[in-house]
Amino acid sequence: MVDDPDRSSADPDEAIMRATYRALSAHGYADLTMKRIAAEYGKSTAAIHYHYDTKDDLLAAFLDFVLGRFKDAVHEVETTDPEERLELLLDQLLVSAGDHSDLLVAMLEMRSQAPYNEPFSERFRQNDAYVRYLLETVIDQGIDADVFADADAEHVARALMTIVDGARTRAVVLDEETALATARRAAAEYLAGTLDHRPA
Amino acid sequence: MVDDPDRSSADPDEAIMRATYRALSAHGYADLTMKRIAAEYGKSTAAIHYHYDTKDDLLAAFLDFVLGRFKDAVHEVETTDPEERLELLLDQLLVSAGDHSDLLVAMLEMRSQAPYNEPFSERFRQNDAYVRYLLETVIDQGIDADVFADADAEHVARALMTIVDGARTRAVVLDEETALATARRAAAEYLAGTLDHRPA
Repeated sequence: MVDDPDRSSADPDEAIMRATYRALSAHGYADLTMKRIAAEYGKSTAAIHYHYDTKDDLLAAFLDFVLGRFKDAVHEVETTDPEERLELLLDQLLVSAGDHSDLLVAMLEMRSQAPYNEPFSERFRQNDAYVRYLLETVIDQGIDADVFADADAEHVARALMTIVDGARTRAVVLDEETALATARRAAAEYLAGTLDHRPA
Repeated sequence: MVDDPDRSSADPDEAIMRATYRALSAHGYADLTMKRIAAEYGKSTAAIHYHYDTKDDLLAAFLDFVLGRFKDAVHEVETTDPEERLELLLDQLLVSAGDHSDLLVAMLEMRSQAPYNEPFSERFRQNDAYVRYLLETVIDQGIDADVFADADAEHVARALMTIVDGARTRAVVLDEETALATARRAAAEYLAGTLDHRPA
């Protein structure tokens, strides 16, 4: 989701986002303060308030930043082969997420606040709709190209996101180290049953 | 998970649990106070503190209560036919949960606190291990009886719980009304691919 958080940047917005990443990873959402973010940023809280009025404004911007990073990573998936592309997308969602396991705890806290926080809610929905669109598109391409069996692509994309969200929840709540790997295997099994992958 | 919360009870512990259920459903976890639980209980906060020292003690007991209710519901699943029993367990996990959607919001807040709250963490792990044991047992019975194809029952149970946890998370974070129904269908498709259900 986020590149090396220690990479320095000349862009103050990006530097604040990286500081937020480190502060969230270290303290979680409930214990996050502007002061802690400022400490990671290496400047005063005033320097952060200059860009963001409130902590929740900053965190809404942080969710946009994380989604942006995810989009960048997805754009690097260059193959147009539907089977390979679907595998790589699932790797991005379930394998690469393990590189940021320190962020998963804070993300689940923020997700649990979605019913009370409209800007969070909006961004989680937008993120989900975007990823489902990517999945649905590649599934439809595979169906059109006859490499996948005919299927309800919209439903299959939702089912895959259910597995992804379950894995991320379990990784945090149960501290289950194998949650992402279990889900990656389950997603492959689900697709084998649903899209009837033909042997290569 | 919980029977009709308005049913009155002579047992003070159970009456407090029902009051906690109503207070959690109405206010969520972050805004839950002993005062609000007492208001639902219809007695003073002292009457609750007599039984539970802190809010977190009470909530740990509440998680035990919810798990107990779930166990009771599962014991009512009387069939020993593995296919039917597995279907009914999934209905309990994914269909009946919809009757308590007001509780799902508070439960996700509590789950997100598991990394910071050992008594919560312990109960979520215990709950998960219990449900996985039920699923694994019925899958193994089906494999032994040759109604299911040979499969890694431990993994299949984990995969099913990933779908269950994903559905519950999505129902709350995305306010997705169809999240449980989508997951129920995905679980059936996953099992059709994995356990190779034979046609009835």
